[in-house]
Amino acid sequence: MKVFTRRISLETGRRRELINITKEVRRVVAESGIRDGLCTVYTMHSTSSVIVNEDESGLKSDVIAKIGEDFPRDRGWAHNRIDDNADSHLAGAYLGPSVSIPVEGGQPDLGTWQSVFFLELDGPRSGRKVVIQVMGE
Amino acid sequence: MKVFTRRISLETGRRRELINITKEVRRVVAESGIRDGLCTVYTMHSTSSVIVNEDESGLKSDVIAKIGEDFPRDRGWAHNRIDDNADSHLAGAYLGPSVSIPVEGGQPDLGTWQSVFFLELDGPRSGRKVVIQVMGE
Amino acid sequence: MKVFTRRISLETGRRRELINITKEVRRVVAESGIRDGLCTVYTMHSTSSVIVNEDESGLKSDVIAKIGEDFPRDRGWAHNRIDDNADSHLAGAYLGPSVSIPVEGGQPDLGTWQSVFFLELDGPRSGRKVVIQVMGE
Repeated sequence: MKVFTRRISLETGRRRELINITKEVRRVVAESGIRDGLCTVYTMHSTSSVIVNEDESGLKSDVIAKIGEDFPRDRGWAHNRIDDNADSHLAGAYLGPSVSIPVEGGQPDLGTWQSVFFLELDGPRSGRKVVIQVMGE
Repeated sequence: MKVFTRRISLETGRRRELINITKEVRRVVAESGIRDGLCTVYTMHSTSSVIVNEDESGLKSDVIAKIGEDFPRDRGWAHNRIDDNADSHLAGAYLGPSVSIPVEGGQPDLGTWQSVFFLELDGPRSGRKVVIQVMGE
Repeated sequence: MKVFTRRISLETGRRRELINITKEVRRVVAESGIRDGLCTVYTMHSTSSVIVNEDESGLKSDVIAKIGEDFPRDRGWAHNRIDDNADSHLAGAYLGPSVSIPVEGGQPDLGTWQSVFFLELDGPRSGRKVVIQVMGE
């Protein structure tokens, strides 16, 4: 059994944005040499999230539009008395900081239409830190 | 330490449906022989989810009604230019593909009123694949 | 490799309330002696949740207000024919029962503005059980 952890750093270009990091996740799983175990992808920022979904351009714009509608920026949020990103924090709290995916045969168990995305909720930013960890044997 | 992984296949009968898979989760934990560890239940489909809740018929209909209200099918979603299930993907993104439950004394740490459900968001379907993985000692 | 599990018991004072349990999480990680692994924080109650967010008083009131708006108590929920907390269950289903955080160098990978919160959705209650589990080496 072993634990293999890597951090990646992301640059985002818009306030809300989906960045497909499946390739990075697969690369870390491969580098780990772990055949069977669990892969956790965790964002170290509470104004962002990690989600699993299909990588289709229309769907990505739907996700961004839906979040904008459900978590409007200007609503007199109390947090905005000291900052301007209450909506980003609220969306991050709802969507969560991580996903955990079983690993079998050296591959994460992603279905045909599943990709792993970093979801920026308060960009543009540089240096967004995401931890990819594989534990297993 | 070991990793024990099983896949189950589910058939669903309605577009949105909750299927209680607690018995399957408990069976895999028992088969694994693992006394202390972590059990992850992961769906390989981005138009579905795995959640924990109470198994009460009224509550299950409330969950289904609430999702239908929060993720309406006909809203001019961009994804529906090439498919017809944007709402299913959006609900899947919000609710997430998995839950991870600690295992103690050979049992998942489910509270008295907690059951594990597969949540179909784009049924009816056959061959819905769910991974149940136990890692521990 | 080892698995180290502790349960904490919480008392809550309001119907909806955020309780910062980061100190308890860090203490269990330290007690475990595990340097590299995964820490899972899991609530055993389906009318509560565990989330990660910034500990700022305005933001905490925004989270509570947003949940009250998204999951209204009086809506003729079917579950309320036998109980009075359908809204609590629905919010718990959406927000999820747990978070899993990688551990590196004996510390959970929490970012500068990330705290772990128990989210009470049907208080006030005593004896709310939360499992903190660390697995790794």
